[in-house]
Amino acid sequence: MNYPASVKIVEVGPRDGLQNEKQSVAAATKIELIARLGSAGLRAIEATSFVSPKWVPQMADAAEVMAGIARLPGVSYPVLTPNLQGFQAALAAGAQEVAVFAAASESFSRRNINCSIAESLDRFLPVMQGARAAGVKVRGYVSCVLGCPYEGEIAPHAVADVAARLFAMGCYEVSLGDTLGTGTPLKTQRMLGAVLERLPLERVAGHYHDTYGMAVANIYASLQMGVATFDASVAGLGGCPYARGASGNVATEDVVYLLEGMGISSGVDLARLLDCAAWISAVLGRRPASRVGQARCAAMA
Amino acid sequence: MNYPASVKIVEVGPRDGLQNEKQSVAAATKIELIARLGSAGLRAIEATSFVSPKWVPQMADAAEVMAGIARLPGVSYPVLTPNLQGFQAALAAGAQEVAVFAAASESFSRRNINCSIAESLDRFLPVMQGARAAGVKVRGYVSCVLGCPYEGEIAPHAVADVAARLFAMGCYEVSLGDTLGTGTPLKTQRMLGAVLERLPLERVAGHYHDTYGMAVANIYASLQMGVATFDASVAGLGGCPYARGASGNVATEDVVYLLEGMGISSGVDLARLLDCAAWISAVLGRRPASRVGQARCAAMA
Repeated sequence: MNYPASVKIVEVGPRDGLQNEKQSVAAATKIELIARLGSAGLRAIEATSFVSPKWVPQMADAAEVMAGIARLPGVSYPVLTPNLQGFQAALAAGAQEVAVFAAASESFSRRNINCSIAESLDRFLPVMQGARAAGVKVRGYVSCVLGCPYEGEIAPHAVADVAARLFAMGCYEVSLGDTLGTGTPLKTQRMLGAVLERLPLERVAGHYHDTYGMAVANIYASLQMGVATFDASVAGLGGCPYARGASGNVATEDVVYLLEGMGISSGVDLARLLDCAAWISAVLGRRPASRVGQARCAAMA
Repeated sequence: MNYPASVKIVEVGPRDGLQNEKQSVAAATKIELIARLGSAGLRAIEATSFVSPKWVPQMADAAEVMAGIARLPGVSYPVLTPNLQGFQAALAAGAQEVAVFAAASESFSRRNINCSIAESLDRFLPVMQGARAAGVKVRGYVSCVLGCPYEGEIAPHAVADVAARLFAMGCYEVSLGDTLGTGTPLKTQRMLGAVLERLPLERVAGHYHDTYGMAVANIYASLQMGVATFDASVAGLGGCPYARGASGNVATEDVVYLLEGMGISSGVDLARLLDCAAWISAVLGRRPASRVGQARCAAMA
């Protein structure tokens, strides 16, 4: 096996993690969360989302958050921008990296963002143009890569098609999301196999949800194919939007624990990350959703 | 990869799962749990433990449980027997398979059962003799195979030594336990590599704890080495004795979900198993500790 020597973790807690949070989270809390994540060694921290506050009220403070971040050298703070309006607002707020998202499932695309996959990609063209002109990097997300709530299984070539379109449009990295968390290791490897016929290995990221407890195994299966970038959410923030009360994003702590155990460096200090996870969980009034965090809490009690 | 076409799951919930339970669980509940597990398709169900009720009061009803089980054809109901006295009681209660246990760590052996590894193995000799005379199968457990609370890392050859001793003494199968749950996939494969130099593949079982969220990945790593027997506990019953409030045994539901997703048959009906997990969790007044169970609960709510 050719495991990568080091892995980049893209921390999505402040955006993907908090966006579905019911209680209002203060901008100051988000800013502190981002600072603590940077101190723990995360080098890519998705900070916020420039979307309509009508749809995602939790992200209405996007500009305030961007203004408040004390940017660390060598750390990127990408923001989600679904359209040109969001992109322009992000640019005005000082964003140096943005992200766009499409689905691998036609039904999910139509129900979630009310347009076909092709139409959603067309909408990103002006964002890509604007980003190129402004020297802003663009990351692409593909959702439902290992299953769709409406279509069930998704063909690997369908995922590869969308990923290749995003890459061709100028995304420097494409993050493959198991939105439902139903994926298992061999399906993950088949999906990655199809994508890697179209994209260079170093442009591919895995974004796995732990809803069915498979995320760590799917990351391990991806590492076996050489994938070296993974999205994760501190304290497992976020939950599964399709099964309230269940896990969503894999917890960053669990990913770092796996990598440490495999001798793969991520640059993240696990003890500091656990402190950060305990802090944000306390602020939100809950237990950390990570197994590693729970084990540490229990061992200290 | 040469994945096994089918896997045997050894369900340890009624014994390993319930033994540390603080509230008293009625023998009738244990008997019903075992019946439901059999109906769900489990073919090996560790039923109880013939140990001193002074040490494990929860298992004081071992003979009553054994008398109450409606034995299904093709299903084995092993019981734990730490010494000759326990073995004789198990035999009198109609046990047709027993299990003995040793540690891969000297410090753990001394602190946990107050004798060296070699002494613990010597104690099993009369059990092995009695079992041979009575035509009773013996399973062996090795604990601390991927870490010890007192010694930290355990050398793979130390695990292999104990496993080989148990096999040479007559154990038909040796279950390798990551008691702390600190193992990760490559360490799991290194440990298995050492054991498989001494034991045939079909005599080796993986027993992984999910305390740090690594159990499913460790099972996947073991499947890649051809291991085809895994211990698991319905609803994740048991918890971690070294970190109260944290997970212990990997949940059977999560293992079955992994196997189904990989196209590996286990003979277990996941829907029935989830019903069984929900039932015993309700009886004990808690949520099922499995991710799959939580996802299903949340999806139904």
